[in-house]
Amino acid sequence: MTESSAFRTDRYELTMVDAAIQSGTAHRECMFEAFARRLPDGRRYGIVAGTGRLLELIQQFRFTDAELSWLRNNEVVRSPTLDWLADYSFRGSIWGYQEGEAYFPGSPLLVVEGTFAEAVILETLILSVLNYDTSVASAAARMVSVGLGRPIAEMGSRRTSEFGAVSAARAAYIAGFAATSNLEAGRTWGIPTMGTAAHSFTLLHDSEEAAFRAQVEAFGVNTTLLVDTYSIEDGIDMAVKVAGTQLGAIRIDSGDLPTVVAAARAQLDALGAVNTRITVTSDLDEYSIAALSGSPVDSFGVGTSVVTGSGAPAAGMVYKLVAHKNDSGSWIPVAKTSAAKASVGGRKDAVRRLDSTGTAREEIVLLGDGPAGESELVSPSGLERALLVPLIVGGKPDERYLGPAGTTRARSHHASVMRELPIDAFRLGRGEPVIPTTYR
Amino acid sequence: MTESSAFRTDRYELTMVDAAIQSGTAHRECMFEAFARRLPDGRRYGIVAGTGRLLELIQQFRFTDAELSWLRNNEVVRSPTLDWLADYSFRGSIWGYQEGEAYFPGSPLLVVEGTFAEAVILETLILSVLNYDTSVASAAARMVSVGLGRPIAEMGSRRTSEFGAVSAARAAYIAGFAATSNLEAGRTWGIPTMGTAAHSFTLLHDSEEAAFRAQVEAFGVNTTLLVDTYSIEDGIDMAVKVAGTQLGAIRIDSGDLPTVVAAARAQLDALGAVNTRITVTSDLDEYSIAALSGSPVDSFGVGTSVVTGSGAPAAGMVYKLVAHKNDSGSWIPVAKTSAAKASVGGRKDAVRRLDSTGTAREEIVLLGDGPAGESELVSPSGLERALLVPLIVGGKPDERYLGPAGTTRARSHHASVMRELPIDAFRLGRGEPVIPTTYR
Repeated sequence: MTESSAFRTDRYELTMVDAAIQSGTAHRECMFEAFARRLPDGRRYGIVAGTGRLLELIQQFRFTDAELSWLRNNEVVRSPTLDWLADYSFRGSIWGYQEGEAYFPGSPLLVVEGTFAEAVILETLILSVLNYDTSVASAAARMVSVGLGRPIAEMGSRRTSEFGAVSAARAAYIAGFAATSNLEAGRTWGIPTMGTAAHSFTLLHDSEEAAFRAQVEAFGVNTTLLVDTYSIEDGIDMAVKVAGTQLGAIRIDSGDLPTVVAAARAQLDALGAVNTRITVTSDLDEYSIAALSGSPVDSFGVGTSVVTGSGAPAAGMVYKLVAHKNDSGSWIPVAKTSAAKASVGGRKDAVRRLDSTGTAREEIVLLGDGPAGESELVSPSGLERALLVPLIVGGKPDERYLGPAGTTRARSHHASVMRELPIDAFRLGRGEPVIPTTYR
Repeated sequence: MTESSAFRTDRYELTMVDAAIQSGTAHRECMFEAFARRLPDGRRYGIVAGTGRLLELIQQFRFTDAELSWLRNNEVVRSPTLDWLADYSFRGSIWGYQEGEAYFPGSPLLVVEGTFAEAVILETLILSVLNYDTSVASAAARMVSVGLGRPIAEMGSRRTSEFGAVSAARAAYIAGFAATSNLEAGRTWGIPTMGTAAHSFTLLHDSEEAAFRAQVEAFGVNTTLLVDTYSIEDGIDMAVKVAGTQLGAIRIDSGDLPTVVAAARAQLDALGAVNTRITVTSDLDEYSIAALSGSPVDSFGVGTSVVTGSGAPAAGMVYKLVAHKNDSGSWIPVAKTSAAKASVGGRKDAVRRLDSTGTAREEIVLLGDGPAGESELVSPSGLERALLVPLIVGGKPDERYLGPAGTTRARSHHASVMRELPIDAFRLGRGEPVIPTTYR
């Protein structure tokens, strides 16, 4: 694979461009919208993620000689289209929900303005990034909210594709996770990384004692010792014997956690290791974290469930043409009308209405017909918060959303958004979206 | 990200190496094993995928100056470990199930022999690749088996992370899918790519007729016209009016498919378009494909369900130290013994026992204590097929498993394996593994 992101797309995006160039419609001004028709099964809110990554990938969406010759050799598109692709960079504008923002069914998460050809060609990439990252962030936010402030580390790299793992670490961090096991996420996005040892390290040594001694010699007594390779009770005794009562933490990766954790805490206290923390990492999800709300757990590590969206591994985003200019320059709202997948045409803007206590009460989608940002359609008062911000204007991304700084910004925005949601948002049971979406 | 795959890993792999280098145990000869304790919920077999990709990623697992300086600056490991990492390449051997092979609980899918440090450090990468690709292939194989020979295209790139999409296309192809929408999968792995147009192409034009004319002008009458943007019935009339009775295919992406497809076939036939094929692409999974077994569908396109493993987005593989040599040179089988996650220590080999009709009857895991390949422990008769093949020997991968040729080889091996499974394997309902795993 090259540095170009242009082939992370579906063939039909290019064949559509090809046919539209031939028919003379490729350069019609268009407005596309990314949204979700519904939240994942029974969820009460979703969390947008992927935006900052997406802005960088759109900059890398260029057709180099390698892509162009492959397309030529495989007769995917014709010569005029190859010329157009060779010159391609996205020169339009994109408005969107800030990364980390809550969303609801119909929320216009991304509004993409450009010619048909330049906007349609980004469809697959936009959806890949938003669907995966949003699915992780939406699951992660629920785990954080039931974690009652105790830090949660993302450690699911091994349970998702090797590049998806990096994106998952980032999305979970935006949604409030404290750290990740993934080194690339640390390097690329500035996320704190963590981790000490697996069972194999204990099994490698001639005894658990030898393994603990090796680890403490390497990292000092403030390390985390994994105590459940053989017997948890014997493991805790040995951990304190080796590291002393100043041992940083023990990790437990198996067993009936409420019982095991209570016993471990009592044992540590009895041994005098009253400040030694307990971290648990055994196939956790939002439900098992909630079940530990009364247990003396100090931190959690979550793997499979967060990187696979906890039952909803794709967020269900779609990318639809909602308006185009006709030959006389007027905007025409358009929408698929058949069967169950009908959507709402036309330009959208969106505000979240808050009550006098600052609690979100309604997602208001404003229907217009010009491009976003042209009018002063949104005039947020103190009680209405504007949701769309300019992400790319005339091809240039807003730098504040990029890189590690953009990731930190998204995490901070997310934290403020969560304080705004009604308390019912945080119920784990299946339910309806916590606020209604209204079209105005 | 760089070309190195070395940071697609968890921090604790490196801290374990660091502590083991310090304690003098890093260079003990070890045997690790990748396996799944169980099949995904209610499945009767699983399909191994990712192996060919993994062999290439292991070759790229090198620490360049970029990785080393990041590790130094972030104080992840100490100086002797940095020196060791700088010199790292995997020099051990890996035996494994062929890509495309069926597997069952406890099947020793990968046996990795090397020093502790060189083998443990690959854990996260091995599991990321195997867990994701296997989850996709396992779901895809079920779809193919209920598709009754009609071609299925993978078009789920937009429903998984943008790099995962490429791996998913490859895994689905190995499991018998006919093509993919993903261009990078076409370029990197030689998989046939497909796709023509989305609803946006129709909506862009002033009428459905104009859109169909544009597409037929660009691609000829043998193209596939998407007929459900407005009314399916009107869409079919228009498609045949524009393209004539030699129209290649229509695509239907919504509605109650058994009803809609039957009506569409009757309408096409009545219009004289008796050779025009029908392809359907509406949120399909193995169950909805099975429900179309009696419908005149000519081909399927599957998205979300295949790239997310159809309810099982991670295959549940683990990577465990099963034996190491002690200081006197003897192999010591080791295993975690606490609680529910106990595993079986020692070296494994595996054969599949077939009955006289060539049908698989038993997965036999042979327990030994030396490294795989050292003894002639497996002597497959006509009725026992050896499952482990050498993938990497002394650091060198078997070239036959790499690249597009390796992918084709895996697809072909998969097809032969499926013919060997008992008929009960293909029942869609939840059940037990179709053959038992026996330890001998």
